Amino acid sequence: MSYSAPIKDMSFVMNELAGLDDVGRLPGFEEATPETAQSVLEEAGKLASQVWAPLNVAGDRQPAQWSEGRVSATPGFSEAFRQFVDGGWQGLSHPVEYGGQGLPRLVGAACLEMQKAANLSLATCPSLTDGAIEALLMAGSDAQKTRYLPRLVSGEWSGTMNLTEPQAGSDLGLLRARAERHPDGTYRIFGTKIFISWGEHDMSGNIVHLVLARTPDAPEGVKGISLFLVPKYLVNDDGSLGARNDVQCVSIEHKMGLKGSPTAVLQYGDEGGAMGELIGEENRGLEYMFVMMVSARYAVGMQGIAVAERAYQKARDYAKERVQSRPVDGSVQQSVTIVHHPDVRRMLGTMRALIEASRAVAYVAAAHADHARHHPDASARAEHHALYEFMVPIVKGWSTEMSVEVASLGVQVHGGMGFIEETGAAQFYRDARILPIYEGTTAIQGNDLIGRKTVRDGGAVAKRLVGEIGQIVQALAAHPAFVDSPAFMAMHRHLAAANQSFANAVAFMLENAKQDPNAAYMGGVPYLKLVGIVLGGWQMARALLASQRLMQEDPAFHGAKIATAHHYATHLLPQAGALEATILGARDGEGVLALSEDQF
Amino acid sequence: MSYSAPIKDMSFVMNELAGLDDVGRLPGFEEATPETAQSVLEEAGKLASQVWAPLNVAGDRQPAQWSEGRVSATPGFSEAFRQFVDGGWQGLSHPVEYGGQGLPRLVGAACLEMQKAANLSLATCPSLTDGAIEALLMAGSDAQKTRYLPRLVSGEWSGTMNLTEPQAGSDLGLLRARAERHPDGTYRIFGTKIFISWGEHDMSGNIVHLVLARTPDAPEGVKGISLFLVPKYLVNDDGSLGARNDVQCVSIEHKMGLKGSPTAVLQYGDEGGAMGELIGEENRGLEYMFVMMVSARYAVGMQGIAVAERAYQKARDYAKERVQSRPVDGSVQQSVTIVHHPDVRRMLGTMRALIEASRAVAYVAAAHADHARHHPDASARAEHHALYEFMVPIVKGWSTEMSVEVASLGVQVHGGMGFIEETGAAQFYRDARILPIYEGTTAIQGNDLIGRKTVRDGGAVAKRLVGEIGQIVQALAAHPAFVDSPAFMAMHRHLAAANQSFANAVAFMLENAKQDPNAAYMGGVPYLKLVGIVLGGWQMARALLASQRLMQEDPAFHGAKIATAHHYATHLLPQAGALEATILGARDGEGVLALSEDQF
Repeated sequence: MSYSAPIKDMSFVMNELAGLDDVGRLPGFEEATPETAQSVLEEAGKLASQVWAPLNVAGDRQPAQWSEGRVSATPGFSEAFRQFVDGGWQGLSHPVEYGGQGLPRLVGAACLEMQKAANLSLATCPSLTDGAIEALLMAGSDAQKTRYLPRLVSGEWSGTMNLTEPQAGSDLGLLRARAERHPDGTYRIFGTKIFISWGEHDMSGNIVHLVLARTPDAPEGVKGISLFLVPKYLVNDDGSLGARNDVQCVSIEHKMGLKGSPTAVLQYGDEGGAMGELIGEENRGLEYMFVMMVSARYAVGMQGIAVAERAYQKARDYAKERVQSRPVDGSVQQSVTIVHHPDVRRMLGTMRALIEASRAVAYVAAAHADHARHHPDASARAEHHALYEFMVPIVKGWSTEMSVEVASLGVQVHGGMGFIEETGAAQFYRDARILPIYEGTTAIQGNDLIGRKTVRDGGAVAKRLVGEIGQIVQALAAHPAFVDSPAFMAMHRHLAAANQSFANAVAFMLENAKQDPNAAYMGGVPYLKLVGIVLGGWQMARALLASQRLMQEDPAFHGAKIATAHHYATHLLPQAGALEATILGARDGEGVLALSEDQF
Repeated sequence: MSYSAPIKDMSFVMNELAGLDDVGRLPGFEEATPETAQSVLEEAGKLASQVWAPLNVAGDRQPAQWSEGRVSATPGFSEAFRQFVDGGWQGLSHPVEYGGQGLPRLVGAACLEMQKAANLSLATCPSLTDGAIEALLMAGSDAQKTRYLPRLVSGEWSGTMNLTEPQAGSDLGLLRARAERHPDGTYRIFGTKIFISWGEHDMSGNIVHLVLARTPDAPEGVKGISLFLVPKYLVNDDGSLGARNDVQCVSIEHKMGLKGSPTAVLQYGDEGGAMGELIGEENRGLEYMFVMMVSARYAVGMQGIAVAERAYQKARDYAKERVQSRPVDGSVQQSVTIVHHPDVRRMLGTMRALIEASRAVAYVAAAHADHARHHPDASARAEHHALYEFMVPIVKGWSTEMSVEVASLGVQVHGGMGFIEETGAAQFYRDARILPIYEGTTAIQGNDLIGRKTVRDGGAVAKRLVGEIGQIVQALAAHPAFVDSPAFMAMHRHLAAANQSFANAVAFMLENAKQDPNAAYMGGVPYLKLVGIVLGGWQMARALLASQRLMQEDPAFHGAKIATAHHYATHLLPQAGALEATILGARDGEGVLALSEDQF
């Protein structure tokens, strides 16, 4: 059950596709040279493969245990987490002034991928801490920042996000948790929160819960939600830990996967109210949470890429080892390792093509996030910000849907052994299944992509992307390699067609999102998948160009990149046309949109 | 966790699409009137929903237990199975002369679906018995038939299929189990068999193992395999049970799903050899097994349809109950049940469209099997046999791949609750995952569809189907409803295009299966999916025509059928074009076919 960090693949994407050198030229990132990035990745890879990865199965077989309000993490997790904290990994992309290393998100993305691939359950914990750090950086008071940030950035304390209640999942307007003002300026929090990842555990000195709740006079719905910081242990003015706060973990869930990550039900205020500090202003909680959620969604997308990579490595290793059946082309009369069979190649090729494409999209998005924060020019920052925001639902929605498919193919490559738990392929299939759900289901990502990301700016960002992809299509055709390269020809043909489908879908959304919203939003997930496939194809085409250029440096590596791009062109890009037809075929009052509830 | 047998849907397919009245006119099926079929379905539905379905969760949470060679089935399973046996359900489609009821397979298919939907794990047991019955009917001696068939047909004894060994899964040529001739005319069997479903249990008086093994002088590879009957308990001449045979269950597997079905490792011959009777002739074992496998594969396809239906019912019920978020069209200012949201309708619509289409294909295939066995005219029998044989890899491969997708959508409809085991949606997702693997992976089905079903007859059956589908396309356009019906127009457009893709893929296979086998067989699974989608679309188009005609009889029911057909047209049929592009884009020496083993 080993994991080998794909550093060479990651570096290729960072350097050739995501522009690490440009990121390294941004103010504040002067130290992020390709050499530094390489050594950071190597160190991260060691921790991931040597310390975290061997515990991944333990998380599944010996899940966190609840007893009388306390949760013990899987044996070994605390020590592995300690090594992460001691190495300063929690603060990798966080500000230097609070003890972080201030490295670009692009570098952080690769490290994140490794951590999540090595141990998806364990890696969830520091990602939630990242969210708490972001929220405090954005809206915390100076006192809050001073009190909480250094110990969150160091990893000494962990963070959580408390949104969901039994009646309020995607629909935060329904949430009921209450926050009563206290004379000392703090609040008392009451209510039940569910699905709180790492909501209680024994790996950190303190847990900083970020909790959405309503003040007594708040407006109804999403406009009356405020954000509170509720520490598990109160923090004295000298920074020492005080009394236990009135928040209790009353149970943890029995889940299909991600079992090493305890999913808590937290009860606030049963003994008079949990002390909570308001973050920012009252009734602006959802706004802050949305900013946090952008990062959280990005991180979940990385989870998808990571678990897919892990599933691929396992399936690939099995395919090279398992001997079964003669080649269909009759080239050998003995049974051969199954990696020689065309369908196994198809499956491994599809897994790999999806992983490489979604990784490239995610890393390119991370580079946009870096530019959006650090570029000296405000309009450039805005432009990069818009591109990043457009890509986040793709990174979240497409990469996680992809991960379920890839993990399922991973099981299939193993044949009957894939269904046996001891083999380990099944864990990835079970673990991956939560990813298209939490932090906003794929439908929510699709709605976001239509409403806030495509329609609100009149399709400006979407059309800009269509234009950039069109330029790559032209570059393929204009390339000297074109006439002799089946890969170039296939990519040119299928990317051009898929990009046209993208353009047509954008036009459909612009025309229909307001006038026929049911039809438009029925196409939300297909639209998200279409855009994911096309953006992935765009990056695979850029990878193809880069590998063609670099071929002589490493023929085996770049030859594989070209083959994978070719596979992407013929096996993935054609889906764009099918999705376009589906999206454009919707009308309100037709098909299943016309059915009464009883007819289902 | 209830299951309601969809008898109305089933009857619609049996009567309007699969031609139950024609089947009922075949010699030997005179009693299979629509009225009889209806009452059989109702009785089967009661057993399924009232007795078997409530135990489905128990199978998952209290799997069969192994102890010292004995396997205890999930508590409650024995009693539930007893009711099945007492009701005569095992013999439903088996010959009257051995105690069966001799009903058509078409009726049996619907009953099979109900049993599998109600309790997938439990229903696996009698399906294996069906296989043993088929093998004996085909190749058993009169003495074997007399000795074993009555008690298999009654369900008193159960059957198993013993193919797999650790080194021999899909590749039966590698199997090593030995069969030594004994002076008394029987054989002594030695070896290890794995993945034997219900290979040991406590629900039946005896277990009849059908075992593939090699005699000492047998040719190598698949031509040297013989089929043996190895009873758990020897059977005396008077029919009473004798000594325990030398076959032991040494362990059962720890699986991701289907946990109520014990998967045994069986050890033969550790104490001198297990008594085995040769079935048929030596070295013809694979041939007999292939005939059995056709039925077994069909039954696994029904498992896919069944688990998908169960997943749909659960998701639909949740969608009608769970209140979350306002409608996107702003029609209501309160949160509504999620069945009102377009994406939930898309998911439920897709689940239902896939289930209805795959059910129709499977039942139509069953009707062909009935004609293939009972039609008075030999050439008609041959024709129906060829159509049935063409459809079986689709029923097996497409319906099971579909079931994984549908079960996954079922989890998604539940949101976060879907990932919690208590909810029950996760079980279907886990259970379904074995279906595209066992009884021949989807790749094996794809290879079969290309080699034996498409290329061997020069595409005759495939082209015949293309022609029949073309006639339905014409019938849609010629229908008076066409001009006013978006469903007719969408179906006409997309089925015509998909059928053209089918024709193009057939032509590609005929041209390339021999001259570029790696390229052709890399398209095996895409081709299987393409044919599945098109045959499904064909049946949905026929359902559309039938429901249009019957609309006034039951507007809600037939309106839903039309909407589902419309959804199938816009959401599923467009995939055919993408699959065609993928299939036709393959060339040996390109893309991942060109990679060396090290490049993976």
